[in-house]
Amino acid sequence: MSHNSFGHLFRFTTWGESHGPAIGCIVDGTPPGISLSEADIQPWLDRRRPGQSRFVTQRREPDQVRILSGVFEGQTTGTPISLFIENEDQRSKDYGEIKDKFRPGHADYTYWAKYGLRDYRGGGRSSARETASRVAAGAVARKVIEKVTGKPAEIRGALIQIGSQTIDRGRWDWAEVDRNPFFSPDAAMIQPWSDLLDGLRKAGSSTGAIVEVVASGLPAGLGAPLYGKLDADLASAMMSINAVKGVEIGAGFAAEPRTGEANADEMRMGNDGVTFASNNAGGILGGISSGQDIVVRFAVKPTSSILTPRHTVNTSGEDTEISTKGRHDPCVGIRAVPVGEAMMAIVLADHLLRHRAQCG
Amino acid sequence: MSHNSFGHLFRFTTWGESHGPAIGCIVDGTPPGISLSEADIQPWLDRRRPGQSRFVTQRREPDQVRILSGVFEGQTTGTPISLFIENEDQRSKDYGEIKDKFRPGHADYTYWAKYGLRDYRGGGRSSARETASRVAAGAVARKVIEKVTGKPAEIRGALIQIGSQTIDRGRWDWAEVDRNPFFSPDAAMIQPWSDLLDGLRKAGSSTGAIVEVVASGLPAGLGAPLYGKLDADLASAMMSINAVKGVEIGAGFAAEPRTGEANADEMRMGNDGVTFASNNAGGILGGISSGQDIVVRFAVKPTSSILTPRHTVNTSGEDTEISTKGRHDPCVGIRAVPVGEAMMAIVLADHLLRHRAQCG
Amino acid sequence: MSHNSFGHLFRFTTWGESHGPAIGCIVDGTPPGISLSEADIQPWLDRRRPGQSRFVTQRREPDQVRILSGVFEGQTTGTPISLFIENEDQRSKDYGEIKDKFRPGHADYTYWAKYGLRDYRGGGRSSARETASRVAAGAVARKVIEKVTGKPAEIRGALIQIGSQTIDRGRWDWAEVDRNPFFSPDAAMIQPWSDLLDGLRKAGSSTGAIVEVVASGLPAGLGAPLYGKLDADLASAMMSINAVKGVEIGAGFAAEPRTGEANADEMRMGNDGVTFASNNAGGILGGISSGQDIVVRFAVKPTSSILTPRHTVNTSGEDTEISTKGRHDPCVGIRAVPVGEAMMAIVLADHLLRHRAQCG
Amino acid sequence: MSHNSFGHLFRFTTWGESHGPAIGCIVDGTPPGISLSEADIQPWLDRRRPGQSRFVTQRREPDQVRILSGVFEGQTTGTPISLFIENEDQRSKDYGEIKDKFRPGHADYTYWAKYGLRDYRGGGRSSARETASRVAAGAVARKVIEKVTGKPAEIRGALIQIGSQTIDRGRWDWAEVDRNPFFSPDAAMIQPWSDLLDGLRKAGSSTGAIVEVVASGLPAGLGAPLYGKLDADLASAMMSINAVKGVEIGAGFAAEPRTGEANADEMRMGNDGVTFASNNAGGILGGISSGQDIVVRFAVKPTSSILTPRHTVNTSGEDTEISTKGRHDPCVGIRAVPVGEAMMAIVLADHLLRHRAQCG
Repeated sequence: MSHNSFGHLFRFTTWGESHGPAIGCIVDGTPPGISLSEADIQPWLDRRRPGQSRFVTQRREPDQVRILSGVFEGQTTGTPISLFIENEDQRSKDYGEIKDKFRPGHADYTYWAKYGLRDYRGGGRSSARETASRVAAGAVARKVIEKVTGKPAEIRGALIQIGSQTIDRGRWDWAEVDRNPFFSPDAAMIQPWSDLLDGLRKAGSSTGAIVEVVASGLPAGLGAPLYGKLDADLASAMMSINAVKGVEIGAGFAAEPRTGEANADEMRMGNDGVTFASNNAGGILGGISSGQDIVVRFAVKPTSSILTPRHTVNTSGEDTEISTKGRHDPCVGIRAVPVGEAMMAIVLADHLLRHRAQCG
Repeated sequence: MSHNSFGHLFRFTTWGESHGPAIGCIVDGTPPGISLSEADIQPWLDRRRPGQSRFVTQRREPDQVRILSGVFEGQTTGTPISLFIENEDQRSKDYGEIKDKFRPGHADYTYWAKYGLRDYRGGGRSSARETASRVAAGAVARKVIEKVTGKPAEIRGALIQIGSQTIDRGRWDWAEVDRNPFFSPDAAMIQPWSDLLDGLRKAGSSTGAIVEVVASGLPAGLGAPLYGKLDADLASAMMSINAVKGVEIGAGFAAEPRTGEANADEMRMGNDGVTFASNNAGGILGGISSGQDIVVRFAVKPTSSILTPRHTVNTSGEDTEISTKGRHDPCVGIRAVPVGEAMMAIVLADHLLRHRAQCG
Repeated sequence: MSHNSFGHLFRFTTWGESHGPAIGCIVDGTPPGISLSEADIQPWLDRRRPGQSRFVTQRREPDQVRILSGVFEGQTTGTPISLFIENEDQRSKDYGEIKDKFRPGHADYTYWAKYGLRDYRGGGRSSARETASRVAAGAVARKVIEKVTGKPAEIRGALIQIGSQTIDRGRWDWAEVDRNPFFSPDAAMIQPWSDLLDGLRKAGSSTGAIVEVVASGLPAGLGAPLYGKLDADLASAMMSINAVKGVEIGAGFAAEPRTGEANADEMRMGNDGVTFASNNAGGILGGISSGQDIVVRFAVKPTSSILTPRHTVNTSGEDTEISTKGRHDPCVGIRAVPVGEAMMAIVLADHLLRHRAQCG
Repeated sequence: MSHNSFGHLFRFTTWGESHGPAIGCIVDGTPPGISLSEADIQPWLDRRRPGQSRFVTQRREPDQVRILSGVFEGQTTGTPISLFIENEDQRSKDYGEIKDKFRPGHADYTYWAKYGLRDYRGGGRSSARETASRVAAGAVARKVIEKVTGKPAEIRGALIQIGSQTIDRGRWDWAEVDRNPFFSPDAAMIQPWSDLLDGLRKAGSSTGAIVEVVASGLPAGLGAPLYGKLDADLASAMMSINAVKGVEIGAGFAAEPRTGEANADEMRMGNDGVTFASNNAGGILGGISSGQDIVVRFAVKPTSSILTPRHTVNTSGEDTEISTKGRHDPCVGIRAVPVGEAMMAIVLADHLLRHRAQCG
């Protein structure tokens, strides 16, 4: 058991705070003989990197990853892989306000209540900066999936809603996702989302988003009932991402009002085995993958760092007000897309190894 | 690591299939010196027991629990508690159809794909019958919470939606929950839900439900960032329950379209410490409890066992049809209420011990 | 994490006390499709069963095992296997003395110090009766090894020393082990050991023993450096057996005074791969199996239940004396042989699955 | 589960190879509010540091530790502590011989058999260089013990035998341990051990050693039966150290030939509670600490790196010979003393937290 590890056979352990000298993780359990270099990891970090558009935080971090162990002559050795990312832009500003006041919606109060002290610089350990480690580990997970299944992992995320503006699924285009700063699969949403976020940013306000992550081409049989169910592990993985407040699989909450007839995915034999007439189950039945696309969706709450003054209390137990200045994402949900993809990859890599262990 | 265990310091491991001789679990990590007898557990099992109204399965199971170890002279000894429940009503019917055909929406196909064989009798291991063990373990968890916090755990669940019929939160009455067969907190929903389910039952159809579970009176500080976050563990706990497809904390998905100002829960000093103006966070910030009510909600899909014939395939790889006869819940979400409560209690008991370990 | 579980991918969790209604365990992680019935387990339990000679405790327990889950139509399903053994001969004698006094050398005092209370009947949870569960789980482990390696596991234990009387390794005969009540591989030791133990038994005294367990035919590559080393896991496994105070691998303590030249096992190519000129390493290098015989040895202290009165204290904090009457093994090391074999099998089954997970 | 982690609630995860850019570890589970700086860790690393006498390897490593996370304003925050040690003296020599040949007694062959490839530079992951991370983590563990028990941990190791030359326990002097290069508690052994090792070093040979580690002043009640027994965890901890082949607790193997009367430690009431007339149990009964000194002893085999040519095979499957040149310890057991102390501290810190979790 470790509070800072995730996964079982493919497992990573992260460390580091927003304003410490560096962050990083140890990736353990990787099969040997996988070609791996920084160049396999860096592109995924670059997708998550701050400062790439006006819609995300302007903190400047190159997020250059270094592999410090576990790789020899370009190949994984089966020993732990230490990934290391320096923090460069820890702006040495005055933290006076945050230092003593608890920002509503943030983890300031709860860390203080739990530990009796906290690293207040940029949120310390609770900062979304830690998610860079997840993305780096996720890049290794993709290589593991490719090694075990014999083909590259197709794990793709997209933003499907900002505020109350939802994409039109009829216009879904995966190629579009990489062409816009929102990871939107619907080109028509770029303008309205830009307008929405420009307005929020100017007002010092924020809003939430919904992210969808889809894994394609994975075999049936992944998932370990009853308490290592694939959907339970995905729920845990996504809920552990900063600011996530809801997770659903396949049709999710929308399945609830339906009848059993409408919701059950009918089966037929196809040329390559069983096919399904629909995918309300999101590719998971009884906690085990069915071979269909694995579909998970999660809601990211509006950024809690806002300019509007809010009532709060301070560490001395006095009523006060706070407004959060500084570099913040008006919609943290955007940069959650590569994080969600990484967590999906990590869960799947882990379950591929777990399945191989038990079932050969 | 165990696929059939849940929790870390308070931990239970379940075993058993729907139509085997018995089911049960081992509860490990219970502090010593807690008074415990079957009478502490049985009432919770009775709440979940089938056959108590016409709206749930008519399988007749007394679900009498026996404590086989870990209790001496009425007190827990700190050693593992073995809980044992006999299966009595394993109707020896013909399983011919289910034996060879995969029921859409069920785990039949995925178990078969994973393991190459399956216990088809009543769903085998994937049957919701296993949840009796969770409820039994949950009863022990409640005693642990009481021991550690010094007061009884107030963990209560309710059904807030069946199909598309939602309760009116303005009429919420916890006392009502135990007076109707739906665990409804809104007396006005009993008639419409009865009508809805009678209709579905006669049609051999089914629908889903949404369950809300609330834990009150727990201290701030529970939860272990970053990968033992309280909300992540709750998400995993609830998603592991049969037929659950979505989980949310506090405002959940409804928080997404809001602005940061609207969503962040403002704080003020009260007589007994910090108070919050609202509870959109569901009592959890940064993965750690804030001392507010802990609120989790989950969506249960419509029962997949329906009379209407559906397309499917069989174990020989041929197209066929199936309709599921037998004793089934038209809305499995109803009996999920005590199961959700139990999982909440288990997560909280575990985190109380984890917090005590690290923070004293 | 569980205090009452052992293993990771092949994992068992035990429950039960010496004088409760039953004992048992859950075996988790077993691959599917292994033929398994009570008849595969019972012979191993019979080897450990008390009352089979005058040299072991006269408690009468048939130790009939029942499989309550995880097996369907004679095959493992991949779900948890619940093994159940009733306690039949819980002699309802007066526990007056043991109840209030701490027996020197026993766990009475430490359980009481840890938990504040204890089940004093026959040692409660600390009784060697629990080892029946280990032997049952070990029988399943043997089946797993056979499934994964394609041949039956050859895991054999023997008693090599009682008191200060050691076998002559030149007379080692595995066939002899099953022909005498001591599991001695040296027929010449039967008479002197019988004499020794008859004398000790009459005197109400006891002595210790050394057990050696050898696993043959396992592949190279088992063991997970650095903290899942095969030898570290074996050390933990054997040290967890009641009354064990020392564990060694291969030459063990005898390797220490040697020179590096004398101790390193030289290698040569043989017809079927690498061969070793000696096996001082006990088949493990760097925590990983080499393909040689895996050899572990452990020392069992003399039984602490003796007739000679000893100084002790009672639960009221007063000085007193105690002599232990009742049914006891004059040399508990004898019945530790099948337990050591079982723990070896369990460690190896676990590591076979762990190796398969990471390395395919 | 992680192959490169040790401990449960106090847990560390190591990474790094002998000749990579750095090594290090993440220490997780540390209680908050403990004062901690590099100065608390460095002295323990300095004790283990190579090159401090002619009896150990001449590799020059300053072993300067850096704390990269988990400490804020001089206090632990409860979040993971990343400890980082650069490798400086990775001599860029020719590894030609070791690259293709398997050194007898080393992990070369087994790593290659397991993983299909290996980092041959200085033993890669199997190098004793990794133990620096253990010592660093052990220093943190000492702080945790002090925090939880309210007094500094008294955990001390000593070398009690080199080759076949054993100390005289009558001359045991803890103060002497820090005054000689052997960690000998017996000043009279310094000359004979120096002579012995000088001879071995000149001959390019080596020998083994026995280390004893004693922890004093710990409370009764530590240890989690049955599979988290304190002695089982200590056995695993010590056996995981490079070159260790045997572990014993208290009287260990020497207890075996005794009678029960001679071996059981009698109890009497003292002024501060229970006292024992002897400590054959090594402070552990039934896997739980008794409050006496906790005593563990382990045998380190002779260094396998020797000048005398030995038969071996190469990666092409051919017979060949090898003699190991380079910087090696003629007796690796010497530097195992601080490593054994560290592992003792880590096990105890973990069990203090585990005990606090369950028993308050």
